[in-house]
Amino acid sequence: MLSRNRMLIRSLLSSSFPCTRSFSETAPPPRKFLETGDTLRQTRIFTNEDVTEYSKASLDSNPLHFDSELARNAGFEDRLVHGMLVAALFPRIIASHFPGAIYVSQSLHYKSPVYVGDAVAGEVQVTNIRENKSRYIVKFSTKCFKNDKLLVIDGEAVAILPTLAAEKVNVVD
Amino acid sequence: MLSRNRMLIRSLLSSSFPCTRSFSETAPPPRKFLETGDTLRQTRIFTNEDVTEYSKASLDSNPLHFDSELARNAGFEDRLVHGMLVAALFPRIIASHFPGAIYVSQSLHYKSPVYVGDAVAGEVQVTNIRENKSRYIVKFSTKCFKNDKLLVIDGEAVAILPTLAAEKVNVVD
Repeated sequence: MLSRNRMLIRSLLSSSFPCTRSFSETAPPPRKFLETGDTLRQTRIFTNEDVTEYSKASLDSNPLHFDSELARNAGFEDRLVHGMLVAALFPRIIASHFPGAIYVSQSLHYKSPVYVGDAVAGEVQVTNIRENKSRYIVKFSTKCFKNDKLLVIDGEAVAILPTLAAEKVNVVD
Repeated sequence: MLSRNRMLIRSLLSSSFPCTRSFSETAPPPRKFLETGDTLRQTRIFTNEDVTEYSKASLDSNPLHFDSELARNAGFEDRLVHGMLVAALFPRIIASHFPGAIYVSQSLHYKSPVYVGDAVAGEVQVTNIRENKSRYIVKFSTKCFKNDKLLVIDGEAVAILPTLAAEKVNVVD
Protein backbone atom coordinates (compact mmCIF):
# COMPACT_ATOMS: atom_id res chain seq x y z
CA MET A 1 0.00 0.00 0.00
CA LEU A 2 2.86 2.30 0.88
CA SER A 3 4.57 1.69 -2.47
CA ARG A 4 1.28 2.47 -4.26
CA ASN A 5 1.10 5.71 -2.33
CA ARG A 6 4.64 6.54 -3.32
CA MET A 7 3.80 5.90 -6.95
CA LEU A 8 0.79 8.17 -6.61
CA ILE A 9 2.91 10.88 -5.07
CA ARG A 10 5.43 10.58 -7.91
CA SER A 11 2.74 10.73 -10.56
CA LEU A 12 1.12 13.72 -8.91
CA LEU A 13 4.41 15.56 -8.93
CA SER A 14 5.26 15.16 -12.57
CA SER A 15 4.92 18.89 -13.18
CA SER A 16 7.48 21.38 -11.90
CA PHE A 17 6.99 23.90 -9.12
CA PRO A 18 8.95 27.04 -9.91
CA CYS A 19 9.96 29.37 -7.12
CA THR A 20 9.98 32.84 -8.62
CA ARG A 21 13.09 33.89 -6.72
CA SER A 22 14.92 30.83 -8.02
CA PHE A 23 15.02 31.83 -11.64
CA SER A 24 16.49 35.29 -11.58
CA GLU A 25 19.09 35.58 -14.35
CA THR A 26 21.50 37.37 -12.03
CA ALA A 27 21.41 34.64 -9.37
CA PRO A 28 21.60 31.23 -11.09
CA PRO A 29 21.77 28.93 -8.05
CA PRO A 30 18.26 28.36 -6.62
CA ARG A 31 17.65 29.93 -3.22
CA LYS A 32 17.38 27.26 -0.59
CA PHE A 33 15.94 29.06 2.43
CA LEU A 34 12.58 30.74 2.56
CA GLU A 35 12.59 34.43 3.50
CA THR A 36 9.95 37.09 4.04
CA GLY A 37 8.98 38.49 0.63
CA ASP A 38 9.61 35.22 -1.25
CA THR A 39 6.89 34.17 -3.67
CA LEU A 40 6.14 30.62 -4.78
CA ARG A 41 4.01 30.27 -7.89
CA GLN A 42 2.34 27.57 -9.91
CA THR A 43 -0.14 27.60 -12.80
CA ARG A 44 -2.88 25.11 -13.54
CA ILE A 45 -5.44 24.85 -16.34
CA PHE A 46 -8.69 23.40 -15.02
CA THR A 47 -10.41 20.82 -17.23
CA ASN A 48 -13.84 19.20 -17.37
CA GLU A 49 -12.26 16.10 -15.85
CA ASP A 50 -10.87 18.12 -12.94
CA VAL A 51 -14.34 19.45 -12.15
CA THR A 52 -15.87 15.97 -12.36
CA GLU A 53 -13.12 14.39 -10.27
CA TYR A 54 -13.30 17.11 -7.62
CA SER A 55 -17.10 16.73 -7.45
CA LYS A 56 -16.73 13.02 -6.81
CA ALA A 57 -14.15 13.60 -4.07
CA SER A 58 -15.95 16.50 -2.37
CA LEU A 59 -19.52 15.39 -3.16
CA ASP A 60 -20.17 19.06 -3.98
CA SER A 61 -22.77 18.93 -6.71
CA ASN A 62 -23.81 22.57 -6.98
CA PRO A 63 -25.40 22.80 -10.46
CA LEU A 64 -23.37 25.98 -11.10
CA HIS A 65 -20.52 23.54 -11.83
CA PHE A 66 -22.45 21.29 -14.22
CA ASP A 67 -25.23 23.26 -15.88
CA SER A 68 -24.04 25.96 -18.30
CA GLU A 69 -27.53 27.37 -18.79
CA LEU A 70 -28.17 27.72 -15.07
CA ALA A 71 -24.76 29.37 -14.66
CA ARG A 72 -25.52 31.86 -17.47
CA ASN A 73 -28.88 32.66 -15.93
CA ALA A 74 -27.02 33.43 -12.68
CA GLY A 75 -24.86 35.99 -14.53
CA PHE A 76 -21.78 33.93 -15.39
CA GLU A 77 -20.27 33.20 -18.81
CA ASP A 78 -20.46 29.45 -18.29
CA ARG A 79 -20.40 26.84 -15.54
CA LEU A 80 -17.82 27.41 -12.82
CA VAL A 81 -14.84 25.51 -11.55
CA HIS A 82 -15.33 24.89 -7.80
CA GLY A 83 -13.71 27.71 -5.81
CA MET A 84 -12.28 25.27 -3.28
CA LEU A 85 -10.61 23.32 -6.09
CA VAL A 86 -8.95 26.50 -7.34
CA ALA A 87 -7.97 27.39 -3.76
CA ALA A 88 -6.37 23.95 -3.39
CA LEU A 89 -3.50 25.46 -5.38
CA PHE A 90 -2.29 27.14 -2.16
CA PRO A 91 -1.64 24.06 0.00
CA ARG A 92 -0.34 22.25 -3.09
CA ILE A 93 2.25 24.97 -3.74
CA ILE A 94 3.30 25.13 -0.08
CA ALA A 95 3.49 21.35 0.40
CA SER A 96 5.36 20.79 -2.84
CA HIS A 97 8.17 23.03 -1.61
CA PHE A 98 7.84 22.02 2.04
CA PRO A 99 6.70 18.39 2.35
CA GLY A 100 5.14 17.83 5.73
CA ALA A 101 3.80 21.39 5.97
CA ILE A 102 0.89 21.57 8.41
CA TYR A 103 -1.93 23.94 7.53
CA VAL A 104 -3.15 26.16 10.40
CA SER A 105 -5.55 28.54 8.65
CA GLN A 106 -6.69 29.85 5.29
CA SER A 107 -8.96 32.73 4.32
CA LEU A 108 -10.50 32.86 0.85
CA HIS A 109 -12.22 35.77 -0.86
CA TYR A 110 -13.60 34.82 -4.24
CA LYS A 111 -13.21 37.81 -6.54
CA SER A 112 -13.76 36.49 -10.09
CA PRO A 113 -15.19 33.27 -11.53
CA VAL A 114 -12.96 30.53 -12.97
CA TYR A 115 -14.25 28.63 -16.02
CA VAL A 116 -13.15 25.31 -17.50
CA GLY A 117 -10.08 25.96 -19.63
CA ASP A 118 -8.89 28.97 -17.64
CA ALA A 119 -5.19 29.02 -16.75
CA VAL A 120 -4.98 30.07 -13.11
CA ALA A 121 -1.72 31.15 -11.47
CA GLY A 122 -1.56 30.56 -7.74
CA GLU A 123 0.90 32.66 -5.75
CA VAL A 124 1.88 32.41 -2.10
CA GLN A 125 4.09 35.18 -0.74
CA VAL A 126 5.74 35.00 2.66
CA THR A 127 4.67 37.89 4.90
CA ASN A 128 6.00 36.61 8.24
CA ILE A 129 8.21 33.85 9.63
CA ARG A 130 8.36 32.88 13.30
CA GLU A 131 10.48 30.07 14.73
CA ASN A 132 8.93 27.88 17.43
CA LYS A 133 10.47 24.68 18.83
CA SER A 134 12.58 24.02 15.71
CA ARG A 135 9.60 24.51 13.41
CA TYR A 136 8.54 27.60 11.49
CA ILE A 137 5.16 29.28 11.62
CA VAL A 138 4.90 31.02 8.26
CA LYS A 139 2.22 33.47 7.17
CA PHE A 140 1.52 33.78 3.46
CA SER A 141 -0.46 36.17 1.33
CA THR A 142 -2.31 33.82 -1.06
CA LYS A 143 -3.64 34.96 -4.42
CA CYS A 144 -4.85 33.41 -7.66
CA PHE A 145 -4.90 35.24 -10.98
CA LYS A 146 -6.20 34.39 -14.42
CA ASN A 147 -5.26 36.04 -17.71
CA ASP A 148 -2.13 37.23 -15.89
CA LYS A 149 -3.81 40.10 -14.07
CA LEU A 150 -7.37 39.32 -13.02
CA LEU A 151 -7.56 38.55 -9.30
CA VAL A 152 -9.59 35.37 -8.77
CA ILE A 153 -8.98 34.56 -5.10
CA ASP A 154 -7.43 36.70 -2.39
CA GLY A 155 -6.59 35.58 1.11
CA GLU A 156 -4.05 34.54 3.70
CA ALA A 157 -2.69 31.25 4.98
CA VAL A 158 -0.67 30.17 7.99
CA ALA A 159 1.31 26.93 7.86
CA ILE A 160 3.85 25.23 10.12
CA LEU A 161 6.91 24.21 8.10
CA PRO A 162 9.36 21.54 9.32
CA THR A 163 12.22 23.49 7.69
CA LEU A 164 12.81 26.68 5.70
CA ALA A 165 14.93 24.80 3.15
CA ALA A 166 12.71 24.56 0.09
CA GLU A 167 12.48 21.42 -2.02
CA LYS A 168 11.72 21.91 -5.66
CA VAL A 169 9.89 18.57 -5.92
CA ASN A 170 8.95 16.39 -2.98
CA VAL A 171 9.39 12.72 -3.87
CA VAL A 172 9.03 10.41 -0.88
CA ASP A 173 11.53 7.52 -1.10
CA MET B 1 -22.96 15.61 -22.04
CA LEU B 2 -25.65 17.45 -20.13
CA SER B 3 -27.48 14.22 -19.34
CA ARG B 4 -24.24 12.67 -18.06
CA ASN B 5 -23.84 15.66 -15.79
CA ARG B 6 -27.37 15.23 -14.55
CA MET B 7 -26.68 11.60 -13.78
CA LEU B 8 -23.54 12.58 -11.92
CA ILE B 9 -25.45 15.16 -9.91
CA ARG B 10 -28.07 12.53 -9.04
CA SER B 11 -25.48 9.99 -8.00
CA LEU B 12 -23.65 12.54 -5.88
CA LEU B 13 -26.84 13.36 -4.05
CA SER B 14 -27.78 9.87 -2.99
CA SER B 15 -27.30 10.72 0.69
CA SER B 16 -29.69 12.93 2.61
CA PHE B 17 -29.02 16.42 3.91
CA PRO B 18 -30.84 16.92 7.19
CA CYS B 19 -31.65 20.42 8.41
CA THR B 20 -31.47 20.31 12.20
CA ARG B 21 -34.44 22.60 12.62
CA SER B 22 -36.48 20.27 10.43
CA PHE B 23 -36.55 17.36 12.80
CA SER B 24 -37.89 18.88 15.98
CA GLU B 25 -40.55 16.57 17.41
CA THR B 26 -42.79 19.51 18.15
CA ALA B 27 -42.73 20.85 14.59
CA PRO B 28 -43.06 17.94 12.15
CA PRO B 29 -43.27 19.80 8.82
CA PRO B 30 -39.80 20.77 7.53
CA ARG B 31 -39.05 24.50 7.63
CA LYS B 32 -38.95 25.88 4.16
CA PHE B 33 -37.36 29.32 4.58
CA LEU B 34 -33.92 29.95 5.97
CA GLU B 35 -33.75 32.21 9.02
CA THR B 36 -30.99 33.60 11.19
CA GLY B 37 -30.04 30.93 13.73
CA ASP B 38 -30.89 27.97 11.47
CA THR B 39 -28.28 25.22 11.33
CA LEU B 40 -27.73 22.82 8.43
CA ARG B 41 -25.70 19.75 9.23
CA GLN B 42 -24.21 16.77 7.43
CA THR B 43 -21.82 14.01 8.49
CA ARG B 44 -19.22 12.27 6.36
CA ILE B 45 -16.78 9.47 7.11
CA PHE B 46 -13.55 10.00 5.15
CA THR B 47 -12.02 6.89 3.55
CA ASN B 48 -8.66 6.01 2.00
CA GLU B 49 -10.34 6.30 -1.38
CA ASP B 50 -11.57 9.82 -0.58
CA VAL B 51 -8.01 10.92 0.25
CA THR B 52 -6.64 9.33 -2.94
CA GLU B 53 -9.39 10.80 -5.10
CA TYR B 54 -9.00 14.25 -3.60
CA SER B 55 -5.23 14.09 -4.12
CA LYS B 56 -5.76 13.32 -7.79
CA ALA B 57 -8.21 16.18 -8.20
CA SER B 58 -6.24 18.77 -6.23
CA LEU B 59 -2.73 17.47 -7.07
CA ASP B 60 -1.96 18.06 -3.38
CA SER B 61 0.58 15.36 -2.55
CA ASN B 62 1.75 16.42 0.89
CA PRO B 63 3.25 13.23 2.38
CA LEU B 64 1.34 13.93 5.62
CA HIS B 65 -1.64 12.47 3.70
CA PHE B 66 0.13 9.31 2.48
CA ASP B 67 2.94 8.38 4.86
CA SER B 68 1.80 7.23 8.31
CA GLU B 69 5.34 7.16 9.71
CA LEU B 70 6.09 10.70 8.61
CA ALA B 71 2.77 11.85 10.07
CA ARG B 72 3.54 10.16 13.41
CA ASN B 73 6.98 11.73 13.48
CA ALA B 74 5.27 15.10 13.00
CA GLY B 75 3.16 14.46 16.11
CA PHE B 76 -0.04 13.03 14.65
CA GLU B 77 -1.68 9.66 15.32
CA ASP B 78 -1.63 8.73 11.64
CA ARG B 79 -1.73 10.28 8.17
CA LEU B 80 -4.19 13.14 7.76
CA VAL B 81 -7.23 13.74 5.62
CA HIS B 82 -6.65 16.94 3.61
CA GLY B 83 -8.06 19.93 5.51
CA MET B 84 -9.54 21.40 2.34
CA LEU B 85 -11.38 18.13 1.65
CA VAL B 86 -12.93 18.25 5.12
CA ALA B 87 -13.76 21.94 4.62
CA ALA B 88 -15.49 21.08 1.35
CA LEU B 89 -18.36 19.91 3.57
CA PHE B 90 -19.39 23.58 3.96
CA PRO B 91 -20.11 24.46 0.30
CA ARG B 92 -21.58 20.97 -0.15
CA ILE B 93 -24.07 21.51 2.68
CA ILE B 94 -25.00 24.99 1.50
CA ALA B 95 -25.34 24.04 -2.17
CA SER B 96 -27.33 20.89 -1.43
CA HIS B 97 -29.99 22.99 0.29
CA PHE B 98 -29.61 25.97 -2.05
CA PRO B 99 -28.61 24.84 -5.55
CA GLY B 100 -27.01 27.72 -7.40
CA ALA B 101 -25.50 29.23 -4.24
CA ILE B 102 -22.51 31.42 -5.10
CA TYR B 103 -19.61 31.36 -2.65
CA VAL B 104 -18.21 34.79 -1.74
CA SER B 105 -15.77 33.97 1.05
CA GLN B 106 -14.67 31.32 3.51
CA SER B 107 -12.31 31.39 6.46
CA LEU B 108 -10.87 28.16 7.85
CA HIS B 109 -9.06 27.60 11.14
CA TYR B 110 -7.83 24.04 11.50
CA LYS B 111 -8.15 23.07 15.17
CA SER B 112 -7.74 19.26 15.27
CA PRO B 113 -6.50 16.64 12.77
CA VAL B 114 -8.89 14.38 10.84
CA TYR B 115 -7.79 10.78 10.20
CA VAL B 116 -9.09 8.21 7.73
CA GLY B 117 -12.19 6.62 9.25
CA ASP B 118 -13.17 9.66 11.30
CA ALA B 119 -16.83 10.66 11.12
CA VAL B 120 -16.91 14.42 10.72
CA ALA B 121 -20.06 16.50 11.20
CA GLY B 122 -20.13 19.75 9.25
CA GLU B 123 -22.44 22.49 10.52
CA VAL B 124 -23.31 25.80 8.94
CA GLN B 125 -25.36 28.20 11.05
CA VAL B 126 -26.92 31.36 9.65
CA THR B 127 -25.65 34.48 11.42
CA ASN B 128 -26.94 37.15 9.04
CA ILE B 129 -29.23 37.48 6.02
CA ARG B 130 -29.32 40.52 3.75
CA GLU B 131 -31.52 40.89 0.66
CA ASN B 132 -30.00 42.47 -2.43
CA LYS B 133 -31.63 42.63 -5.87
CA SER B 134 -33.85 39.59 -5.25
CA ARG B 135 -30.94 37.53 -4.01
CA TYR B 136 -29.81 36.87 -0.46
CA ILE B 137 -26.34 37.47 0.95
CA VAL B 138 -26.10 35.01 3.82
CA LYS B 139 -23.34 34.80 6.41
CA PHE B 140 -22.72 31.45 8.09
CA SER B 141 -20.72 30.29 11.05
CA THR B 142 -19.06 27.12 9.72
CA LYS B 143 -17.76 24.37 12.01
CA CYS B 144 -16.72 20.74 11.75
CA PHE B 145 -16.69 18.36 14.70
CA LYS B 146 -15.53 14.80 15.18
CA ASN B 147 -16.49 12.40 17.98
CA ASP B 148 -19.50 14.67 18.47
CA LYS B 149 -17.66 17.37 20.41
CA LEU B 150 -14.09 17.90 19.18
CA LEU B 151 -13.83 21.05 17.05
CA VAL B 152 -11.94 20.24 13.85
CA ILE B 153 -12.49 23.36 11.73
CA ASP B 154 -13.85 26.74 12.74
CA GLY B 155 -14.62 29.61 10.38
CA GLU B 156 -17.15 31.73 8.52
CA ALA B 157 -18.59 31.73 5.04
CA VAL B 158 -20.59 34.19 2.97
CA ALA B 159 -22.71 32.94 0.08
CA ILE B 160 -25.26 34.50 -2.26
CA LEU B 161 -28.41 32.37 -2.36
CA PRO B 162 -30.94 32.60 -5.20
CA THR B 163 -33.74 31.96 -2.69
CA LEU B 164 -34.26 31.34 1.01
CA ALA B 165 -36.54 28.35 0.32
CA ALA B 166 -34.41 25.33 1.17
CA GLU B 167 -34.37 22.19 -0.94
CA LYS B 168 -33.66 18.97 0.87
CA VAL B 169 -32.02 17.43 -2.21
CA ASN B 170 -31.16 19.37 -5.35
CA VAL B 171 -31.80 17.24 -8.41
CA VAL B 172 -31.49 19.19 -11.68
CA ASP B 173 -34.12 18.07 -14.22
